[in-house]
Amino acid sequence: MPTIRACYACERTFEPSRARCDCGEPLWRPIEPLDRWPSGAGSSGRSIWRYDAVLPASQPAGDLEAGGAAVWRSHSLEGYAGTHVWLADEGRNPTGSFKDRGSAVGVAATLEAEIDRVGTVSHGNMARSVAAHAAAVGIDCTVLVPADIAEERVRAIARFDPKIVRVRGDYGRLYYDALELGRRHGIQFLNSDVPLRVAGQKTLAFDLLERIPDLDAIVLPVSSGGNASAVWKGLLELRAGGLLESLPRLYLTQAAACDPIAAAFQSSRERVDPDADVRETVAYSIANADPPSGTRALAAVRDTGGAVLSVDDDAILEAQDRLARDAGVRVEPASATTLAGLRQLTEREEIDADETVACVLTGRGYGGRGDVPSAPVVDREDLESTLESA
Amino acid sequence: MPTIRACYACERTFEPSRARCDCGEPLWRPIEPLDRWPSGAGSSGRSIWRYDAVLPASQPAGDLEAGGAAVWRSHSLEGYAGTHVWLADEGRNPTGSFKDRGSAVGVAATLEAEIDRVGTVSHGNMARSVAAHAAAVGIDCTVLVPADIAEERVRAIARFDPKIVRVRGDYGRLYYDALELGRRHGIQFLNSDVPLRVAGQKTLAFDLLERIPDLDAIVLPVSSGGNASAVWKGLLELRAGGLLESLPRLYLTQAAACDPIAAAFQSSRERVDPDADVRETVAYSIANADPPSGTRALAAVRDTGGAVLSVDDDAILEAQDRLARDAGVRVEPASATTLAGLRQLTEREEIDADETVACVLTGRGYGGRGDVPSAPVVDREDLESTLESA
Ligand SMILES: [Zn+2]
Ligand SMILES: [Zn+2]
Repeated sequence: MPTIRACYACERTFEPSRARCDCGEPLWRPIEPLDRWPSGAGSSGRSIWRYDAVLPASQPAGDLEAGGAAVWRSHSLEGYAGTHVWLADEGRNPTGSFKDRGSAVGVAATLEAEIDRVGTVSHGNMARSVAAHAAAVGIDCTVLVPADIAEERVRAIARFDPKIVRVRGDYGRLYYDALELGRRHGIQFLNSDVPLRVAGQKTLAFDLLERIPDLDAIVLPVSSGGNASAVWKGLLELRAGGLLESLPRLYLTQAAACDPIAAAFQSSRERVDPDADVRETVAYSIANADPPSGTRALAAVRDTGGAVLSVDDDAILEAQDRLARDAGVRVEPASATTLAGLRQLTEREEIDADETVACVLTGRGYGGRGDVPSAPVVDREDLESTLESA
Repeated sequence: MPTIRACYACERTFEPSRARCDCGEPLWRPIEPLDRWPSGAGSSGRSIWRYDAVLPASQPAGDLEAGGAAVWRSHSLEGYAGTHVWLADEGRNPTGSFKDRGSAVGVAATLEAEIDRVGTVSHGNMARSVAAHAAAVGIDCTVLVPADIAEERVRAIARFDPKIVRVRGDYGRLYYDALELGRRHGIQFLNSDVPLRVAGQKTLAFDLLERIPDLDAIVLPVSSGGNASAVWKGLLELRAGGLLESLPRLYLTQAAACDPIAAAFQSSRERVDPDADVRETVAYSIANADPPSGTRALAAVRDTGGAVLSVDDDAILEAQDRLARDAGVRVEPASATTLAGLRQLTEREEIDADETVACVLTGRGYGGRGDVPSAPVVDREDLESTLESA
C-alpha cells in the first residue's frame, strides 16, 4: 500500500503528512490500477469494500454500508435529456449523500493508523456523513461550522453527537487551518480533498463503469472539486488496470450564481480563481466561491474532453421538477444541476442523441422551499364527483 | 397466478374485487410458496424483482428499484439492545421508506391489468411513495389527504405532481370509501392493506431471511397493520415453500399514546378496537387509532409467538438517539420504536441475550424537532486551544 502522496499536475511525490504540492495543488494517493472487476456477490455485497484491493483500508471499520449506488437507465427522462440517460442515486447511501464513500474509507483508514479522532469543516452533507461514520465506530469527531450556521443544520449534525464548534472568521481559510491543526493535535480531518476521502469517493467511478461499460460521459455537480478529482482518479485507475480503454468525458456542473470553475473553463484559464461575485442560488450546497480542488477539477475535465457548465436557477428548478415528475426521484437542487447541464449539452449538440450519459444525483437534501401548491378541498360526501371529473 | 382473494382468518375465498371477507377481515392473495432463493446477482440485482416467481406482476413497470434493504448486524447497539441485533434500513428505498416495495408491485400489477390510474389515502410516506412510482411510469395518481394537512406535507407530496385532494370529514372512513369509489371509477387504490401492496411488502420478509437464516425474531413498527400482515405472509410463503422450518417471532411496536393493537394483545382480545384515547406522540406516523388490518396483525403476532409492545415517547427518543449516536443511523421516531421495544423485551427476558433479532427501520422521515444543541462559538484564531482542550 503506497504511503506517499503524489501531485497529479507535476508528478512530484511527498510524505503523507504533506497536504499540498510545491506547485500549490492538492496531493492524492498515487494511482492504484484496478485490474479486475470484483467477482460475484461476495460478503461485501455491492458496497465499496468489494474494491478493497485499491482502497487504503483493508476492511470497513463499522457497520454502515456505503456505495452500491442505485444506477438505472431512465427511459422517462430520455426526451428531456436528449440522449440515453442513466441516473446514479447517491442519496441511497447511509446518510443520504456520496460523502459516505469518503467518510467510510477515511474513518476506516484512520482507525487502521491507530488514530482515534476525526473531524471535518462542513455544515452540510459532509458534516453529517463524517459524524455518522465516527459514531458508528465510537470515535471522537469534531465538526467545525460557521458561527452563523442555521439552527436546523446544527440539529441535523448534532444527532450523531460530534463535538460541534462554531467558528467566527474566514470559513474558507478554516479549511486549511483545520488540516494543519489536525496534524498537530492528532485529528484526522476528512475535508473534501483529503487523500483518504478522495480514495473512498473514487469508487463512484468504479460503480458506474462496472454497471455501464459503454459509458460516454458522466455529469457531476462540482463544489470543492474533491469529488470530481475522485471520479477522475477512479477512471485513471480503471484505465491503468486495463479495464477501460478511453475515459468517458467528465462534465461538471455549477450554479450560475457561483461558478468559478466554469468561468475558468470558459476563459481557457489554467487555474481557478475565486468567484468575487457570488449570488444566492437554490443550489447553495455546491456554492463554493474558492474551491480547494478547483484547478484539479478543471484538469480532470480537460483530460477527459469534457466541460464545466454553468446553469441558472430556473434551469435547475425545472430539472429538479422533471426528475420528480417524470422519474419519481426527489433530489436537492445541487443534484438537479446535472440534468439541467445535460440538457444544455444536448441542445448545443456537444452530446449526441445516441450517447450514453450518467447523471450523478449526489444527494437528497432535506426539506424544501417554494410555494405550497394549491389542492382542492372537498367534503368526503362530494369526493365521487371530484374523482369523476379528474 | 392466483386471481382470487383469500381470508387469512376463515379461509373463505372471493373474487378479486372484494375488499373484505364476510367475517369482516381484509383479504389477501392466497399464499404463494417461495421454494427457492433467487440465484446469484441476476439482472434484477438485489431488488424485489428477484422474487418475481411469487409477485403479482411479471416485471417492474418503471425504473425505480425498490427493495434490497441494507441489512447489517449492529455490534455497537448490542449492549443497549441486550441481544444480537441486526438493522434493516428501509430508508434506502427510492422514496425513503418500506412503502416503495408495495408501491412498485402495486403500480406494476395495475399497469399489467391495463388500468392507468392509481391512488392512495395518505399524507405521509405512502403518499410520496405511490406518487413517485406513478410519476416514474407516467400514470395518473390521486392522493386523498385530510383537509387540514400541514403545508410542508403538501409540498413534499406535490413534487411528484399527483392530483392532491384535501378531503373534509372522517379520514378513517375515507380509507374504505376510496376503495369503493376506485372500483367504480377505474382507480386502483394502493391503500395500506390492499392485496397488491401487501404482495409487494412481503418481500421484506424474504430479504431478512435470505440474509439472516437463523433469525429468531423480527421487530417491526405497526400502524395500519398492513405491513405486519405482509411480513407475516412472506414468512408463511417461505415456510410453505420449504425454505423456513419455523417462523421467527413477530414483535410489533406502537407508541403508547396510540396503541390499540397493543391494548388488544395485552388484554387477550380477539379483535382490535379503536383507540378512544389518542394523545400526541413523536411517532405520529404510526399513530393509527383504528387500524384497518389491526386484527390481522394481532393474528400474525399470535401465530408466530411474538407480542405487541407499547413504548412511550421517552423510550422512543432515547432509542432514536442511540441509533444515531451509536450506530450512525438517522431514522424517524416511528422506526426507533423497534429498538425501544427490543430493549423492553430483553429487559423482561422475553428475548434472550443469545438470540438473533432484526429491527426494521421503516423510514427516515423528514426534518426533526427538539432543542437546538448548544455548541461553543470561537474565533478562528482561538481554534487551536479549543481543539486541544476537547
Ligand atoms: Zn505539483
Ligand atoms: Zn374471513
